Amino acid sequence: MALNDLLAHLKQTAALSQAAGVLSWDQEAMMPAKGAAQRAEQVGAMAAVIHARNADPRLAELIAAAEPKTDMDRRNVAEAQRAYDQATRIPARLAEESAKAASEGHMIWAKARADKDFASFAPALARNIELKREEAACLADGDPYDALLDQFEPGAKAVDLSPLLESMRPRLTALREKIAEKPAPDALGGNYPHGKQLALARRTAKWIGYDMEAGRIDTVTHPFCSGSGGDVRITTRTDEADPLNCLYSTVHEVGHALYAQGAPDVFLPAADYCSMGVHESQSRFWENQIARSRPFMDWLYPAMKDAFGAFGVPNPDALYATVNRVETGFIRTEADEVHYNLHILLRFELERDLISGALEVDALENEWNRRFKRDFGIEVTDPAMGVLQDVHWSAGLFGYFPTYSLGNLYGACLDKAMRADMPNRDEKVAAAETGPILNWLRERIHVKGRLLPAPQLIEEATGEAPSAEPLLDYLEAKFGALYDL
Amino acid sequence: MALNDLLAHLKQTAALSQAAGVLSWDQEAMMPAKGAAQRAEQVGAMAAVIHARNADPRLAELIAAAEPKTDMDRRNVAEAQRAYDQATRIPARLAEESAKAASEGHMIWAKARADKDFASFAPALARNIELKREEAACLADGDPYDALLDQFEPGAKAVDLSPLLESMRPRLTALREKIAEKPAPDALGGNYPHGKQLALARRTAKWIGYDMEAGRIDTVTHPFCSGSGGDVRITTRTDEADPLNCLYSTVHEVGHALYAQGAPDVFLPAADYCSMGVHESQSRFWENQIARSRPFMDWLYPAMKDAFGAFGVPNPDALYATVNRVETGFIRTEADEVHYNLHILLRFELERDLISGALEVDALENEWNRRFKRDFGIEVTDPAMGVLQDVHWSAGLFGYFPTYSLGNLYGACLDKAMRADMPNRDEKVAAAETGPILNWLRERIHVKGRLLPAPQLIEEATGEAPSAEPLLDYLEAKFGALYDL
Repeated sequence: MALNDLLAHLKQTAALSQAAGVLSWDQEAMMPAKGAAQRAEQVGAMAAVIHARNADPRLAELIAAAEPKTDMDRRNVAEAQRAYDQATRIPARLAEESAKAASEGHMIWAKARADKDFASFAPALARNIELKREEAACLADGDPYDALLDQFEPGAKAVDLSPLLESMRPRLTALREKIAEKPAPDALGGNYPHGKQLALARRTAKWIGYDMEAGRIDTVTHPFCSGSGGDVRITTRTDEADPLNCLYSTVHEVGHALYAQGAPDVFLPAADYCSMGVHESQSRFWENQIARSRPFMDWLYPAMKDAFGAFGVPNPDALYATVNRVETGFIRTEADEVHYNLHILLRFELERDLISGALEVDALENEWNRRFKRDFGIEVTDPAMGVLQDVHWSAGLFGYFPTYSLGNLYGACLDKAMRADMPNRDEKVAAAETGPILNWLRERIHVKGRLLPAPQLIEEATGEAPSAEPLLDYLEAKFGALYDL
Repeated sequence: MALNDLLAHLKQTAALSQAAGVLSWDQEAMMPAKGAAQRAEQVGAMAAVIHARNADPRLAELIAAAEPKTDMDRRNVAEAQRAYDQATRIPARLAEESAKAASEGHMIWAKARADKDFASFAPALARNIELKREEAACLADGDPYDALLDQFEPGAKAVDLSPLLESMRPRLTALREKIAEKPAPDALGGNYPHGKQLALARRTAKWIGYDMEAGRIDTVTHPFCSGSGGDVRITTRTDEADPLNCLYSTVHEVGHALYAQGAPDVFLPAADYCSMGVHESQSRFWENQIARSRPFMDWLYPAMKDAFGAFGVPNPDALYATVNRVETGFIRTEADEVHYNLHILLRFELERDLISGALEVDALENEWNRRFKRDFGIEVTDPAMGVLQDVHWSAGLFGYFPTYSLGNLYGACLDKAMRADMPNRDEKVAAAETGPILNWLRERIHVKGRLLPAPQLIEEATGEAPSAEPLLDYLEAKFGALYDL
């Protein structure tokens, strides 16, 4: 039967992709320094094998002959078509040039950032943009930005995303400004040993529901989550001056990991994660709506005292204020919940203009600084703290940024619906009973895989079409109370 | 140019094999328990991809068209032909049945060993033997055992190996009997914490020349070494009652790792290790001729005192006696230098008889016990300590055992030649200057890759055709002095 042959082909491709994923994890978490050159060859060989399978004319035949009967199988066939299109529409020459430009762009960016010199990065960025436009033209007609966005957020269109995300700016800037007038709580002082932070991270991960027999936790420079099903690994990092960095980075990755551990199948494309935005909604929900909530402090405060002894925060209320400290800063990855989406909005509008050609690369630094001042009220003087801070564009990742904000937005939609379903959720969080919360997400999100497009998945899970209201309401309520606005 | 195309094809296959090697290391050292089922699919998919590349008709065309000019390239072409023959001569049906029988055999063996019941393992063993005979017939004409041996020790023939190895028995049993009349030194007592053992293992590995930037050390149940070039990882284990287990297991794997770190190229088959016997010569040389030598005790004794504090051995001389303690036992993997090769000789003659059909599986247990009594002077009463002790035959590994003894034999040949070249070697070992020793092996063995068959490689390195004399002379001199014979 053609459908079974197709599924067998897809399964083997997925198994090879997982193998490539293990290599990638290993490279960040385990590989000795001198293994880098060999590893590049191994990764390249794996990519070539996977590409050849996706571009195999036999795959097209199997797709054409498949007669799917179930929704899941229709989705599998559609995803197979999508993989085939991506592999065959982009000419090998363009794929190679893009990979090369991304790799070179990344190196030039790293140096430019260290040198605080945007001009030295501009030509490499322009080259990446040119190739991305070419790639977009191969993939689809219409707005080239949509073709790029689609790789991370299937089916999403800038014309829909734009009003959804832009609508957040006025209320976010208003909230930011009101908080800025109030005194901020003190940051944590003291020193928190690496080993004790890791022990607390492990304890917290288990408490939230991360299955340690189906995963592991290691330390790296830039934390990430990888794998699926029975082998979903997370990574974290420690800063001895700031135990909250390790803690919340871990909870964030655990949120991703719970989604991956809950996948309905590990080899079928229809069982894969719905979109990057939905993935991010899982990590941000656990990180913010759960682990930065007041009830969680009833668990976290004694857990931190167990881990570190007395640590200069007198009680759970004070810890709640500390973990939700709002401060206007330049760096996206260090931003609090109030500022985070303003960082994304800035990048989203700039990258659309870069891809459309409305903004020239040479004008990007000035535009970044101008719009940053508009949204954040402070002046960028160091491009390493401004336009050069993120790795994404240097590596050809355009259309990725908005998925971060979609994640925050979806996470708040889920939070609102879950609270309505589970009036005693706060008690459960304070009592360390997160099982019902995880089950709620498992049933409504995790087991659904890629069966529905993200907006429909969220609508079916929550009963409402996704909008920015739940997130903005949540932020205004939470920070209004915390800052006595 | 066909040769370049061939080399490119081989390089990509090697990169994929290395990727599979990383998966295999990960499975033993890192993978969470619940990842096993997915990993089996990943490993199967990688094996299928590698097999398809080796059986690709295009490979045969490239081999036929290649015009190698150098010895290295001639060897590369010959190795490509070897890989192509192995991949194409064994029918897919047989390869699948063999893999299945090996996997099932392994499980049945583990249970039979636990139950101390050879009869329950016999049918699975008989099935493995039948399939191996069939495989051998596909691979080559002549003695089927040679075809199996060739997979581990290229070019070796039982007709040559047999007298070489059998010639060791009389002098080994004579030595064993004389030592048995003397009192053995005490074994180590006390408790040695895991972390301190690992710290000593790391220090020792570095001292010997293991490049930690091109490798790493982790703990597993059954230690092994994997990788090549810039990424050669070793594993070890600890037994809190016996720090020598971890120490010598580590040195053994470091010996393998130094060979792999010294390979002249990581992607070309001609640069691969010469044979399993030569690989084992590297591990056994560092383990026995260096790390169990009297001069090494001048370094090890203070290093152990640093690691563990006072540990009940009064001085380096006493430590020398302890690490070279001879005791007749049932288990190969725990055997001392005097007994080790007697264990191998027993297995070598039994497995030849099993493959030829001279020995029926049903008679194996009795034959094992009878011949064990003949060589070791003690009676086997528990098959878990006898015929069921080793994993090899259960997994279809026939022709592997003799490479262990070849390793010991080659290691002693290299030791003899090195001593003649380096009269002050003992001073260097005592003074922790192992650089010249490693360089000697690098130049004569490591950089030669697979350019020569093992016997010629050893002859070129030492000036003499390999024989058992150097090993027997070394053992008689060392243990004669230690046991005052």
